[in-house]
Amino acid sequence: MIPRYSRPEMVAVWSPETRFRIWFEIEAFACEAMAELGVIPKESAKAIWDKGSKAQFDVARIDDIERVTKHDVIAFLTHLAEFIGEDSRFVHQGMTSSDVLDTCLAVQLRRASDILIADVDALLAALKRRAFEHRLTPTIGRSHGIHAEPTTFGIKLALAYAEFSRARARLVAAREEISTCAISGAVGTFANIDPRVEEFVARKLDLKPEPVSTQVIPRDRHAAFFATLGVVSASVERLATEIRHLQRTEVLEVEEYFSEGQKGSSAMPHKRNPVLTENLTGLARMVRSAVTPALEDVALWHERDISHSSVERMIGPDATVTLDFALARLTGVVDKLLVYPETMRKNLDRLGGLIHSQRVLLALTQKGFSRENAYALVQRNAMPVWRGEGDFLTLLKADPDVSKALSPTELEALFDLGYHLKRVDVIFERVFGAA
Amino acid sequence: MIPRYSRPEMVAVWSPETRFRIWFEIEAFACEAMAELGVIPKESAKAIWDKGSKAQFDVARIDDIERVTKHDVIAFLTHLAEFIGEDSRFVHQGMTSSDVLDTCLAVQLRRASDILIADVDALLAALKRRAFEHRLTPTIGRSHGIHAEPTTFGIKLALAYAEFSRARARLVAAREEISTCAISGAVGTFANIDPRVEEFVARKLDLKPEPVSTQVIPRDRHAAFFATLGVVSASVERLATEIRHLQRTEVLEVEEYFSEGQKGSSAMPHKRNPVLTENLTGLARMVRSAVTPALEDVALWHERDISHSSVERMIGPDATVTLDFALARLTGVVDKLLVYPETMRKNLDRLGGLIHSQRVLLALTQKGFSRENAYALVQRNAMPVWRGEGDFLTLLKADPDVSKALSPTELEALFDLGYHLKRVDVIFERVFGAA
Amino acid sequence: MIPRYSRPEMVAVWSPETRFRIWFEIEAFACEAMAELGVIPKESAKAIWDKGSKAQFDVARIDDIERVTKHDVIAFLTHLAEFIGEDSRFVHQGMTSSDVLDTCLAVQLRRASDILIADVDALLAALKRRAFEHRLTPTIGRSHGIHAEPTTFGIKLALAYAEFSRARARLVAAREEISTCAISGAVGTFANIDPRVEEFVARKLDLKPEPVSTQVIPRDRHAAFFATLGVVSASVERLATEIRHLQRTEVLEVEEYFSEGQKGSSAMPHKRNPVLTENLTGLARMVRSAVTPALEDVALWHERDISHSSVERMIGPDATVTLDFALARLTGVVDKLLVYPETMRKNLDRLGGLIHSQRVLLALTQKGFSRENAYALVQRNAMPVWRGEGDFLTLLKADPDVSKALSPTELEALFDLGYHLKRVDVIFERVFGAA
Amino acid sequence: MIPRYSRPEMVAVWSPETRFRIWFEIEAFACEAMAELGVIPKESAKAIWDKGSKAQFDVARIDDIERVTKHDVIAFLTHLAEFIGEDSRFVHQGMTSSDVLDTCLAVQLRRASDILIADVDALLAALKRRAFEHRLTPTIGRSHGIHAEPTTFGIKLALAYAEFSRARARLVAAREEISTCAISGAVGTFANIDPRVEEFVARKLDLKPEPVSTQVIPRDRHAAFFATLGVVSASVERLATEIRHLQRTEVLEVEEYFSEGQKGSSAMPHKRNPVLTENLTGLARMVRSAVTPALEDVALWHERDISHSSVERMIGPDATVTLDFALARLTGVVDKLLVYPETMRKNLDRLGGLIHSQRVLLALTQKGFSRENAYALVQRNAMPVWRGEGDFLTLLKADPDVSKALSPTELEALFDLGYHLKRVDVIFERVFGAA
Repeated sequence: MIPRYSRPEMVAVWSPETRFRIWFEIEAFACEAMAELGVIPKESAKAIWDKGSKAQFDVARIDDIERVTKHDVIAFLTHLAEFIGEDSRFVHQGMTSSDVLDTCLAVQLRRASDILIADVDALLAALKRRAFEHRLTPTIGRSHGIHAEPTTFGIKLALAYAEFSRARARLVAAREEISTCAISGAVGTFANIDPRVEEFVARKLDLKPEPVSTQVIPRDRHAAFFATLGVVSASVERLATEIRHLQRTEVLEVEEYFSEGQKGSSAMPHKRNPVLTENLTGLARMVRSAVTPALEDVALWHERDISHSSVERMIGPDATVTLDFALARLTGVVDKLLVYPETMRKNLDRLGGLIHSQRVLLALTQKGFSRENAYALVQRNAMPVWRGEGDFLTLLKADPDVSKALSPTELEALFDLGYHLKRVDVIFERVFGAA
Repeated sequence: MIPRYSRPEMVAVWSPETRFRIWFEIEAFACEAMAELGVIPKESAKAIWDKGSKAQFDVARIDDIERVTKHDVIAFLTHLAEFIGEDSRFVHQGMTSSDVLDTCLAVQLRRASDILIADVDALLAALKRRAFEHRLTPTIGRSHGIHAEPTTFGIKLALAYAEFSRARARLVAAREEISTCAISGAVGTFANIDPRVEEFVARKLDLKPEPVSTQVIPRDRHAAFFATLGVVSASVERLATEIRHLQRTEVLEVEEYFSEGQKGSSAMPHKRNPVLTENLTGLARMVRSAVTPALEDVALWHERDISHSSVERMIGPDATVTLDFALARLTGVVDKLLVYPETMRKNLDRLGGLIHSQRVLLALTQKGFSRENAYALVQRNAMPVWRGEGDFLTLLKADPDVSKALSPTELEALFDLGYHLKRVDVIFERVFGAA
Repeated sequence: MIPRYSRPEMVAVWSPETRFRIWFEIEAFACEAMAELGVIPKESAKAIWDKGSKAQFDVARIDDIERVTKHDVIAFLTHLAEFIGEDSRFVHQGMTSSDVLDTCLAVQLRRASDILIADVDALLAALKRRAFEHRLTPTIGRSHGIHAEPTTFGIKLALAYAEFSRARARLVAAREEISTCAISGAVGTFANIDPRVEEFVARKLDLKPEPVSTQVIPRDRHAAFFATLGVVSASVERLATEIRHLQRTEVLEVEEYFSEGQKGSSAMPHKRNPVLTENLTGLARMVRSAVTPALEDVALWHERDISHSSVERMIGPDATVTLDFALARLTGVVDKLLVYPETMRKNLDRLGGLIHSQRVLLALTQKGFSRENAYALVQRNAMPVWRGEGDFLTLLKADPDVSKALSPTELEALFDLGYHLKRVDVIFERVFGAA
Repeated sequence: MIPRYSRPEMVAVWSPETRFRIWFEIEAFACEAMAELGVIPKESAKAIWDKGSKAQFDVARIDDIERVTKHDVIAFLTHLAEFIGEDSRFVHQGMTSSDVLDTCLAVQLRRASDILIADVDALLAALKRRAFEHRLTPTIGRSHGIHAEPTTFGIKLALAYAEFSRARARLVAAREEISTCAISGAVGTFANIDPRVEEFVARKLDLKPEPVSTQVIPRDRHAAFFATLGVVSASVERLATEIRHLQRTEVLEVEEYFSEGQKGSSAMPHKRNPVLTENLTGLARMVRSAVTPALEDVALWHERDISHSSVERMIGPDATVTLDFALARLTGVVDKLLVYPETMRKNLDRLGGLIHSQRVLLALTQKGFSRENAYALVQRNAMPVWRGEGDFLTLLKADPDVSKALSPTELEALFDLGYHLKRVDVIFERVFGAA
């Protein structure tokens, strides 16, 4: 996470101020629950809420205390006691640091998920708008980078829409994975704390109680979470790669918006580069790089070791901030993408009609040729075109074996572009629902 | 995937014979659908089914053809035509190779998922049985590898049960992710094939139609699938690591079953090593290693490139076969695990009573000490015990500041093991449901 | 490792037969050394060599024994004893299984390295030949996929040559990393075996003695080895990606060789796809996927655990066989690559002269313009060209501010292609040495 | 990279101030070279050095300019011109941004390497000191976590010393990998700049000229660099894991230093946890996580795309800062490690003498038993000891088959600890050189 690739809302989720505020709320809700259970005095619980709510926690002061205690939660509790006074002895009773830390992380990851889901919603809206705009804009479909058959630019965007709809569903599932609360004490036995405290705090924070925790919430949940971010970022890379390809000089069917004053190159004033989508490709690599350490974090020793902690201090902010930035950037790219239908049309014609080779193949088989013979016949007329030695339709018409089966008019009909677009509506209905 | 770490049922999912059989079924179902739509003759569709069903596909023959065509589906179709004869010209009409390949992969991954889910079910059954067996077997809970507070061995197993219940849910979701069928033609436009063919084949194969495909089914689905296997394998590693730790010479609370005739070491005849769980740790690394290439496969170029293919030919079998083997091995380990409650009890006593330090701390705060003072008081009596200079209870009784607040009887009550086990039932009910 | 992507020589390195033969040699050399040191009878050492050399080890028989002992080296030694008879009691004295296993792995990885280095040599030869062939074939250099300035196709290949020269040096270093021998006993103390035995065996097998081993050779060596394979495979991917790009329909400056009978697509007979380089992209992902498990193998517990073993049984063959195949395939692609200089020339002209924009910029600054003003001047003439509204040279000539500084002749001189090729010789000399 | 896990010297390498200073030096050295070649006026080159050296670059101002130009190097050059005035038009002539950026990155990575190598040197010194201190401190060697045979704590540290000596050599090689300079213009042809400028700047910055670059320095170099950091961090994890194991409550042979005022647990005042080495385990995961994105960065498109840039902006600082911190922390841990030789001795005796089983096995074979019979004989006496049913020596003495071969005195001699330590000197000489 670096400022260049960060947005303030997500950064705020991970600020020390946010963290200490959540810690306080967990402790205060726990006190409230303990007061209701008669474990601590109700007035104390109330005082804790009142004084803590008004407190301005001093991050530097907490850091100073931590330098001595080498323990972050104890440092915070010591600082909290400075605001609350005597009642602070009721705070954190029967709890262990991880009760606070892990429940806080759950709250932060949940908030981060909310932002990411909203990001995807914005991206989906942009994709949908542009998809309908280009529903019937013909463009060449390419496999292996080689022209295949016509499709529409709208279908390309519909595909991305469907992909990010799946991304959204995965993020919702990932949010559920990490939305649990553990207030279960030193090794998860509730020896010193009533399970109802956990249930109370969970309810207040919009979490579910972790069915069984050790000292920590099990890390398979977090691994599943970060793995999901990795999958989503892979989809970001896919769409970014598509745009980078389409902006190549030789293709130039789309371009990223180029703002006033922007400079493409310090050396070559003519350059307009797809730098945003190239950047997204790199950012996707970074989000994905969180997956392996998150998977390695799962096998903690016994009821916990603390090896996951440094990892999460980094990948927690890094992966969510970077993905948030990437999704927003991608939305901007899609939203303002310059689309050049004329170039698409020009590119469609580039192969001298070869993109219709399959239709010819099928027509020949329907006229009684075996698949093998039809294939050979088509290929023998396709290869000269490939070598730049003529136009496919002309060659077919001139081929005596072909012309025996297919009249010139029949052949021409096989070169109709509209033929390829006739089921766009079916696809759009599947993706976006009935009109 | 190597024979040493493979089980036949999962291996069979990936055999060439299985693959060609599925290919045939996809083609034959597609013909059936096309016949119903009047695109090809009904007799031909019937003949294709009849002759193809009886055909014994010759893997070596297909390989031979592929060596010339350099195209696996064409090689298969050529071979298939040798059985079907003239009607074979109706096979594969309007379809592209990937329609067959990707739908086949979906069927294989779905079958693999079924096996993996059954594996997890077997593991869950073993974990549940052993968890109830040791519901109240006291053992020390450890954080950072250091004794913390008592728990039970049953809780450890309940935790694993809850974790693998999540693994199961993730596998079910992953199975849904990849259970789609694409029969949409060269670039996914259905130009030469009716979308109802895809719907028909999907229904027959227990898949859903892919809402919008290009030439291929989008690879974010597969990435999500393999990422899930990675997360599940991380849980395998966690439980394996727990057992390896518990079998250490100095701990020795459990042991892997040691079969008759087994040799632990070529040099040291006394050795009984946790080789199965060490092996599981390595296997988990291998399953996880499939995640990154699967994520890298997502960003295919345009409507497809074929870079994902070699990856999937390897990780498809490798990751599923290895995880299947690992889950089954883990189930055996859990099922036959030798558990030593006496050693657990002995280890519990090893720290001279220090594991009760938190209860003493809490009791002191309840007597009016501030948290900081109570902590200091406890720590000052704990450190000599740590250094082997006495027993915690004795030292506390002798500490004038402590004894002012807590009587000997009160102190003794704080050292009761049962105190820590009183909420085991709550935890078990959460994990396994009401009795 | 699957047959489709394997070559026999590398596969043989990893066969059970090879492994058992190396095991035997390690044991026999160790006996020879012990005989020289007077630890065992010389006749016995000789008999072991004689009988073992002639023995045909029966892999299935060894597997059978292992099924009982669950220990591979003991199974082998038992089988070996069947050939050697009574003297077999002198075999493996004071040694531990890992002495055999790890030294054998060193021999195998060393042989694998030799093959990989030879592969790179073949690739370098092909690259050099083609580089000189196209030393002065002009082609457009592209940054961000956008035309930048002219370069030559030979420089592209020289770059690959330099990159694989580095790959070669890294492989040589990696070979050194793993070329060590450990015969140091159960925990590496040489308690039951003289260090001179290790030195003797090392010398015979062309290895160095491991300065200090535990039961095993430290795994940082293997991690460094597999990390190197990962880096080499990344270079394979880079060159493969370059070729894939150049073969795109819109670019088509090169093509993979398309063999007689080959079929590009089951549906579209015209297709000629860069399937080999796409395949190399996928194979590179697989080789890279070995890096993380190899890194995770390093942190073995105490003097060893066996978690690395299953990993190495897989990545040892998989990564080396796949990289060997990939390097050989890449060599074939480079060797037979169809290069189209006319298309390169046509593509060079595609931007209406914009690729000379930097020269114009520099010429203007040399005439006294500030960099900023010159940049603005060039950009103002470049943008219409970009939009297809004219030719750069014509526009510049017509721009009054430009023409004040640069005469038509001066401007034309700035559009000379030869200008960009004048230092090709310097680069070639740096890469390939003086002629 | 977060402050918690950072040290100032390495952080400074990556500050904007450092970066802009290096950028300036590259530009100024290039001007100096161009002046010597007569390309630009000598006075201008001098003026650039003079004014630029005194300039205080204003990071915020540069950021402001970049917000408009969206180009960092142009923003810097614009700011630089504010200091230099008219002569600034001679700056950056014939160069491209990447000439500055990539050469700067080389300088930064080289400085980072120097710090890391110094870190390893400090670690080696600590390891050597402690290794000699405990050269003959007996401790149990463990394989699979199970007691194997005696070794010494000094050997454990000597092993780490040898491992980090290799780490040092790898870092030196990695430093060489990235120590190259590219000043070769827009696509690496030196069209607008003399190769001697590159040679001059390289010499001044202690780099070598890149033999052939495109717009960028090839990224296989950086991949090799970060892969090396990954391997080094794996060794950090190994040693950290060893210490974590040795500090377990049941083992407790060593302890991390526990500072005055430190608190082990908020809930359990007795806890002394190996938190530093657990933390190192997590940090190692993070350093390793840079390897995959660095490998993915290699396959840039054509002469460059900019996808690597965002990755390197993150992993450049992150991986080097984290590894620097980790190495320094590990040095501190080793330096102050509390070592408990009495506990080591107590643990050695824990298995009732079983750790001597191999010696007994060897003695029996030397008395004429076959290996198989001797193994069976030893195992039959070992198993009761394993079950806690007696002491190994006593049982052996009582076994009639054993006592026929070995007298009580002979048996007792086999249980001598000194036997295992007799070759410590050989090992130390190999690792540390002759005394």
